[in-house]
Amino acid sequence: MKVLTRELTLTVPQRRAIVSLHREVVDLVKESGVQEGLCLVNAMHITASVFINDDESGLHHDYEVWLEGLAPHAPTSQYRHNGAEDNADAHLKRQVMGREVVVAITGGRLHLGPWEHIFYYEFDGRRPKRILVKIIGE
Amino acid sequence: MKVLTRELTLTVPQRRAIVSLHREVVDLVKESGVQEGLCLVNAMHITASVFINDDESGLHHDYEVWLEGLAPHAPTSQYRHNGAEDNADAHLKRQVMGREVVVAITGGRLHLGPWEHIFYYEFDGRRPKRILVKIIGE
Amino acid sequence: MKVLTRELTLTVPQRRAIVSLHREVVDLVKESGVQEGLCLVNAMHITASVFINDDESGLHHDYEVWLEGLAPHAPTSQYRHNGAEDNADAHLKRQVMGREVVVAITGGRLHLGPWEHIFYYEFDGRRPKRILVKIIGE
Repeated sequence: MKVLTRELTLTVPQRRAIVSLHREVVDLVKESGVQEGLCLVNAMHITASVFINDDESGLHHDYEVWLEGLAPHAPTSQYRHNGAEDNADAHLKRQVMGREVVVAITGGRLHLGPWEHIFYYEFDGRRPKRILVKIIGE
Repeated sequence: MKVLTRELTLTVPQRRAIVSLHREVVDLVKESGVQEGLCLVNAMHITASVFINDDESGLHHDYEVWLEGLAPHAPTSQYRHNGAEDNADAHLKRQVMGREVVVAITGGRLHLGPWEHIFYYEFDGRRPKRILVKIIGE
Repeated sequence: MKVLTRELTLTVPQRRAIVSLHREVVDLVKESGVQEGLCLVNAMHITASVFINDDESGLHHDYEVWLEGLAPHAPTSQYRHNGAEDNADAHLKRQVMGREVVVAITGGRLHLGPWEHIFYYEFDGRRPKRILVKIIGE
């Protein structure tokens, strides 16, 4: 069995942003030498998501508006989690978008559909956060 | 390590529908010869989901109504993604229902609870779409 | 390849509750002897979730309120699934929180971020339910 483990670190300067991880994950699969296997990509922090969807800025704006409607940031007093913190909405939004993706590796490459693109969604940025990439296979 | 990779293709004639993948996945696990391992089933398109829930038509109707409430199709002008397209709601609904499922294989069979049933949820049909099944193990 | 398969059973006395699975999963990874691999933890019932988020009671209360807003239990007559049953909302809530988590194993331990904690979310308790832990690797 071949294995590759890598933590990526990034600091988003805003509270929220969508950041592509696609090129990094593609490169790590190549580096791993795995021909057939699975690639797990997950947020290591609980106020962020890893998800796969369209690389299109209009849609990313739509996600922002939609998630703010489903789990509003303000008023922060509506959440019990918000004592010393003000990020309860981030913990909620992350459940809608998900913690992780598992992607197949076939013939040494990520086995993706035509528009599948791997993203990180930061819901409470302005500090360093980590993403884990774990690849196993042969 | 044993591996099976298979793309399933289907064309849903309506915009939205829930389609069972259960029999196909059960058969592929058998075909793979894997006794112990993992089975990944994911939509390869970003306006569709693979999920596990009840094989009950009343519930499937409830999902339709519920998702339409959470992420309405109309008016399509409410979404920036909808320029040439009108399927922004499909990209949102798919995040609620999920991209993929990972199911254990034990003793040569999918290791499922009594009511777990694997489904595909099409949110923007009327064209061929693919689903990936990737099985790894021994 | 090393494999560990374990079904955990628990009965939540209320309709809904969040229960930690963290210690059990940590112990099973140790028991498996797997140094590098993947750990799948999934609800085997379709009215429950396994998810990773904060071990903080205020946030757990916020999830309760938030999910009840997104997919209310009452009036039960609003759902077609509710003929002999009254748990349609449980099938909906579980889709928001997810069926499963896949966690990397590195150096013989779960590879988790600082606040990641594995939980079971029961949406229709008062009867025995099972959770599956499947560990594969080397």
